[in-house]
Amino acid sequence: MRVEARVLKGFRDYLPEVEGPRQAMLGKVKAVFESFGYGPLMTPALEYSDILLGKYGDEGDKLLYRFTDNGERDVALRYDLTVPLARVVASYGDLVMPWRRYQVAPVWRAEKPARGRFREFVQCDVDLVGEPSVRADAEIMMVGLSVLEALSVPRFVMRVNDRRILDGVLDKVGVAVEQRIAVLRIVDKLPKVGRAEVDKEIASTVGLAQDKIDALFALLVPAAEVPARKHLEHLQAELADSAVGQAGLAGLTVLLETLANAGFAEKVDIDLTIARGLDYYTSTIYETFLVGHEGFGSVMSGGRYDTLLDMFTSRSIPAVGISLGVDRLLAALLELGLIEANKAPADAFFCLFSEADYAHNAALATALRKVGVKVELSLSAGKLGKQFQLATKKGHRFALLQGEGERAAKQVVLKNLGTGEQETLPCGDEVALKALATRIASSGAHDGRP
Amino acid sequence: MRVEARVLKGFRDYLPEVEGPRQAMLGKVKAVFESFGYGPLMTPALEYSDILLGKYGDEGDKLLYRFTDNGERDVALRYDLTVPLARVVASYGDLVMPWRRYQVAPVWRAEKPARGRFREFVQCDVDLVGEPSVRADAEIMMVGLSVLEALSVPRFVMRVNDRRILDGVLDKVGVAVEQRIAVLRIVDKLPKVGRAEVDKEIASTVGLAQDKIDALFALLVPAAEVPARKHLEHLQAELADSAVGQAGLAGLTVLLETLANAGFAEKVDIDLTIARGLDYYTSTIYETFLVGHEGFGSVMSGGRYDTLLDMFTSRSIPAVGISLGVDRLLAALLELGLIEANKAPADAFFCLFSEADYAHNAALATALRKVGVKVELSLSAGKLGKQFQLATKKGHRFALLQGEGERAAKQVVLKNLGTGEQETLPCGDEVALKALATRIASSGAHDGRP
Repeated sequence: MRVEARVLKGFRDYLPEVEGPRQAMLGKVKAVFESFGYGPLMTPALEYSDILLGKYGDEGDKLLYRFTDNGERDVALRYDLTVPLARVVASYGDLVMPWRRYQVAPVWRAEKPARGRFREFVQCDVDLVGEPSVRADAEIMMVGLSVLEALSVPRFVMRVNDRRILDGVLDKVGVAVEQRIAVLRIVDKLPKVGRAEVDKEIASTVGLAQDKIDALFALLVPAAEVPARKHLEHLQAELADSAVGQAGLAGLTVLLETLANAGFAEKVDIDLTIARGLDYYTSTIYETFLVGHEGFGSVMSGGRYDTLLDMFTSRSIPAVGISLGVDRLLAALLELGLIEANKAPADAFFCLFSEADYAHNAALATALRKVGVKVELSLSAGKLGKQFQLATKKGHRFALLQGEGERAAKQVVLKNLGTGEQETLPCGDEVALKALATRIASSGAHDGRP
Repeated sequence: MRVEARVLKGFRDYLPEVEGPRQAMLGKVKAVFESFGYGPLMTPALEYSDILLGKYGDEGDKLLYRFTDNGERDVALRYDLTVPLARVVASYGDLVMPWRRYQVAPVWRAEKPARGRFREFVQCDVDLVGEPSVRADAEIMMVGLSVLEALSVPRFVMRVNDRRILDGVLDKVGVAVEQRIAVLRIVDKLPKVGRAEVDKEIASTVGLAQDKIDALFALLVPAAEVPARKHLEHLQAELADSAVGQAGLAGLTVLLETLANAGFAEKVDIDLTIARGLDYYTSTIYETFLVGHEGFGSVMSGGRYDTLLDMFTSRSIPAVGISLGVDRLLAALLELGLIEANKAPADAFFCLFSEADYAHNAALATALRKVGVKVELSLSAGKLGKQFQLATKKGHRFALLQGEGERAAKQVVLKNLGTGEQETLPCGDEVALKALATRIASSGAHDGRP
């Protein structure tokens, strides 16, 4: 009996029309990472379970794909890229610090699938390990901002906060230590659900009184007309007695000054309601939004986590990192029209008049590829109209044709499949081929990829 | 108690100094695939076990990482990229045929680890689905040959055979059908172990008499001084009564003619001892060797498999493909000096005189990245000598320096870390920056990657 072809729930195939633009996007992202000196890391999909367990709490442990392998080892598929990073940092004593690495790889979580939530998805993390200074925070933020610039995103802003300011504020308001992560997780939803919802959830979930909630937001959100930097001065007075709050305010001030001097002032905003509901961040935290498209949520988030990487070592290892929401960003770029799906990987479809022409076409295609034109060869000498249809369906912008006459004259016909226009162009030497390549390249980005 | 950082046996971390060159190599490979119109496919790491079972025989089934997930599903990690391809082809009725896809992804096999054999490794497959003509065979071979050209491999040859010729020869010699895969698997070892070893193994494992072995090799290997194409004519007479043998000889002849007319004659050789010990190939088969470095084995192998993809469908789906031995090819390129490991991802290391200079350095680095220079910023204002040492250790070829004096004069110091030479160059406008970029780029390939 034949087995039915099917995919596990929560898993997906990415066909070329989706994976192509995604890979092109990731290629640009990786090029930015490398332009700052970050190198790629690859770690195994499977790890010993004890390496992965306990890092994410009981909830996280339940979400591991964990099993016993043929050698009776207790193993699990990685849940994120941060624990493998911690393991690598602990394992290789000769890493030159500060160590810059990125990793783009799938992770697996046995979660209940939902819209936009899958059991296998790609994470894209870039981290700077071993440097405590605020310059590391500034660098990682510049990496993130440069990624969005490289992807031609027209307007975006990175909203930055410092966990220590939040601690100072929570001290001041009088929120108990054990309630804080819960409160911050709810505050983090502010841009999505609005103040009223947040108030309701804090009251019902954590049981905080309304006057405390009001006091909290009075400290976190500047009064109307008050610029964020002015509000920081206000906080400096309000948190005068809080050492941790003062440290946070000083850190954030120096960070913003550094970024401004480096030319990134316009892309960064203070936002003290950015909370990052993860308890491992120790100071700077940030999220990144596409202006006018905040509904997508943060496309890039991160911060400083100075205690997380020491889980496998007695050394203390400061670190700062940012994580790109690959699927979210791709969806946004598609919606913004900055990339197009469903396009052929090649520039032109070389039609086949008769089977005897194939090798000639292949030889010319080889020459064209050498000058940078991507050519897909037709393998069947069907009717030309049908070949044009096929080429259009595949997403090609151009068709190439060469009959015996053109071949003898060292010419080729270039047909624009969009407009129907066609012209006969020389192709007999490198100059002619390069002119042809320029002609094809200049007719708009060949596949609209970023 | 702290968990010990360790990796599962048979699994590996790829640190940036290895993964960087590997990714750079794969980037070039993917660009060639796309220049022929092939698009990337991504499929889940986990599949239902029944999708994967039985395709590789009992031996293969034992090598699956198979387990029961939290939802009581019988699942397994993929063993290769061919079964997922078959599943995808059966699942999506709207794929436009012929369908061109590539996939570069890890696969998992619970094998006994050995030198060069791992439980997790990357496969790189490019396949052309749905086209029965010999033009598809020619195209996939041209893709493979173009990959090695793009990687600047100086001398290589693709050795090609046709499974149907082997069948005709085995008929003629009188090797029983059930012995054939065993015989072919041993014949396949010929370049590695030599004729004497092969004879011994065929005799001891399959029990074939020496006169039959001699007859076999008389048909497979041309007599001294006889060119391979001449030998094909000889076979045409010897296999006059074999329909399958004649079909193979005709197919191989047309294929070679097509490749020759397309300009690839010099890169392809007939070799009737190429056997590909896998039973799913149906006609053309090929392996690719680096001339003078045959010891690495075939770096790229494949063929036509017209019956494999129909495992999940009643449709018959012809297909042809080639698989790149990523780790083997990388090892060869490293040994040939065509790529270098252990190099920094960036071109230059921007030293830091004092912490107050950081934002200025960052601003200049941003401008340099925009003209294509990859710059890693020093984050610590230690002694300059130590910073040069660090930059050299990281594999940088250049250091950049800018003191207050240079900054005022809109200049930067470029120091060649290899020769120790340094020069002061302008950096105040785009023309100057581009000149600096050209200067850095022209001092040899920045990282020696292919």
